[in-house]
Amino acid sequence: MRPIKRLIPLSEALDLATGAARPVVRTETVPIVESADRVSAEEVVSKVSVPPFTRGGMDGYAVRASDTYGASKLKPVALRCVEAVYAGAVPRRTVSKGMCSEIATGAMLPRGADAVVMVEDTELEGDKVLVSESVHPGKNVSKKGEDISPGSRILSRGDLMNPSKIGALAAIGRETVKVYAKPLVAVVPTGSEIAPLGGSLKRGQVYNINGYTLSSAVAECGGQPRMLGIVDDSLGDLEDVLSKNKDCDMLVFSGGSSVGERDIMLDLLERNGRVVFHGIAVKPGKPTLFGTVGKQLVFGMPGYPTSCLSNAYLLLAPVLRKMARLPDLLKRTVEARMGKRFVSTTGRTQFLTVKLEAGVAQPAFKESGAITSMAYADGYIVIPADVDLIEKDEPVTVHLL
Amino acid sequence: MRPIKRLIPLSEALDLATGAARPVVRTETVPIVESADRVSAEEVVSKVSVPPFTRGGMDGYAVRASDTYGASKLKPVALRCVEAVYAGAVPRRTVSKGMCSEIATGAMLPRGADAVVMVEDTELEGDKVLVSESVHPGKNVSKKGEDISPGSRILSRGDLMNPSKIGALAAIGRETVKVYAKPLVAVVPTGSEIAPLGGSLKRGQVYNINGYTLSSAVAECGGQPRMLGIVDDSLGDLEDVLSKNKDCDMLVFSGGSSVGERDIMLDLLERNGRVVFHGIAVKPGKPTLFGTVGKQLVFGMPGYPTSCLSNAYLLLAPVLRKMARLPDLLKRTVEARMGKRFVSTTGRTQFLTVKLEAGVAQPAFKESGAITSMAYADGYIVIPADVDLIEKDEPVTVHLL
Repeated sequence: MRPIKRLIPLSEALDLATGAARPVVRTETVPIVESADRVSAEEVVSKVSVPPFTRGGMDGYAVRASDTYGASKLKPVALRCVEAVYAGAVPRRTVSKGMCSEIATGAMLPRGADAVVMVEDTELEGDKVLVSESVHPGKNVSKKGEDISPGSRILSRGDLMNPSKIGALAAIGRETVKVYAKPLVAVVPTGSEIAPLGGSLKRGQVYNINGYTLSSAVAECGGQPRMLGIVDDSLGDLEDVLSKNKDCDMLVFSGGSSVGERDIMLDLLERNGRVVFHGIAVKPGKPTLFGTVGKQLVFGMPGYPTSCLSNAYLLLAPVLRKMARLPDLLKRTVEARMGKRFVSTTGRTQFLTVKLEAGVAQPAFKESGAITSMAYADGYIVIPADVDLIEKDEPVTVHLL
Repeated sequence: MRPIKRLIPLSEALDLATGAARPVVRTETVPIVESADRVSAEEVVSKVSVPPFTRGGMDGYAVRASDTYGASKLKPVALRCVEAVYAGAVPRRTVSKGMCSEIATGAMLPRGADAVVMVEDTELEGDKVLVSESVHPGKNVSKKGEDISPGSRILSRGDLMNPSKIGALAAIGRETVKVYAKPLVAVVPTGSEIAPLGGSLKRGQVYNINGYTLSSAVAECGGQPRMLGIVDDSLGDLEDVLSKNKDCDMLVFSGGSSVGERDIMLDLLERNGRVVFHGIAVKPGKPTLFGTVGKQLVFGMPGYPTSCLSNAYLLLAPVLRKMARLPDLLKRTVEARMGKRFVSTTGRTQFLTVKLEAGVAQPAFKESGAITSMAYADGYIVIPADVDLIEKDEPVTVHLL
């Protein structure tokens, strides 16, 4: 057994791991409706005007503004309606002095008209429209190109796609958008004690938990997980994983990185790449290992389910988000008060799972081997290494799980 | 033209629409790794123990605790190591008085042993293990069933799936989980002025923006969008949509609900179902229409892109989340200060898009017809109907887009 020699602070581990991470450069083209939560890999400059023509911005009557000057409820101006222009139609009549055209929101403004009077400010009297409001030129009118003018940039590289950005692409008629590929992440459960789901367990075995928690955490952070079958903790088998997954941006092994696990992960990295750190001052989960093999990042996560997943949230998530070019945090945090006094270990960052009850955060941590420490919790709080005590009722920020 | 007679407050509209919404009861079975962000439709009670056997919780030596009583750094106790037990292996030797077995984290505790001494508290001397720490029975040991005991409930109906809940299912060997189906939502862009993406525009036409923004907003709220082609604003064509989409839980039309749009949507609902409300005191987007056709909810959204999408966020999203059984809000909000004085319309809830710059929210609203009002914004604030003014530097809550 080679004991872990030095635990580095979480902040140092984060700096080293994110420093080694490179944002993906591969791109792919997807239909815009499937691009939500992806990151744009292109700058889109409009060649067209939106709206493509000057249009009415209200339901009402297209008028020459000067015809309405001085109009009021007491002294309405009578105009003759020459046409009704629906959205999608092309007006055939010009609005001359003393005339107007009925117009729907979004319909093309007729030639001659320069403003729209809202229907609420008009009254019909026989074939006349009585206008009781004076409007200035441009009132209730959207000018051609007012929303998007030709040459204006509607999307930048690195923009996170959302419904409204998708809408801006639709507005100029674009059906697809180039986005960055998701970082490809091999998830590798290791150890002869791990058994696949669905079957029965041999004595001494446990089911593969980490393969599933890590794969879904990877997907949540914008990665594309490739969950491999369970691999024995032998150098040959692990090297086989490396050679078969050279297309991956990251490999995440779970198990095999603690002092008792025959140090295979350490050997693997030393023989095929480089160890960057081994051991972080966090609780739970200190034996996390990180290194590189060529351009690939390699994590060796603790085998214990809660240690594995909590270190994934603290360390793997920010690294993967950087590779995926996603903002640091998408999930919600809520402010709460601590439900009871909690003593933390000085010198180690503590990841503490909590249940939320009416704004009060109750510690829900069982032990690092217990997946229920997290599965039964609503979120977690992060207690810095230099804080050894949180008093009851102290305010805390809860990251929702 | 039938003018909108009465605008109801947003809160009343929300009560009416969410009151009419029924959570989906259809279920489907999915692989656990694909269940993240879905809602569990089953209660899962474990039949097995996790861990399935009593195991060591640390790397070290499995001992009889009584053998270590009184041990200290100055006066270590010497034990004879009879075996090394790796994770996944079955111990062959019993730990008798004066003996110990080397044990890896997660490995099965040998018969006779009742505690584990951490490797850090031991030293090797020839074939002896010197133990320098006294441990009590149960120390560094995880008892069989300590994480999950047979008969305990690990998942409830209505639980939102996340990596750790997926982990709890994996822990008992479950490969699939029953989740509620996503509400099926037909998204129907209407109006002869709307043109499909990819082609060229005829005069008077604009591209289909709302079909895309609504479909991605529906997906974001846990719905399954079914984006239909563009439908003409004729009663016959719209009734055809109703009869061909009877399997949908909701239909969302865009366009056709304002006073000038020939009132077809109103006719459609009155002939085939029931109008619940028509017109909300919100800005932008007051002409939103809501009703029911049998058990289906029907929204008639404003045709203007920003009005359409902002009303989708304010009204359609909470209704759909209820149907999808999702929590109210998953997206993040941030606190900011208002960048400039903003005057709102009394009596109407204002949806105001903002750009965030170093904690300051700058109004980014252009006009309701402009998709860039939203596409260029970072988020939005909601100004209640009874607030007519936000001063510069006032604190505001920004909902990220």
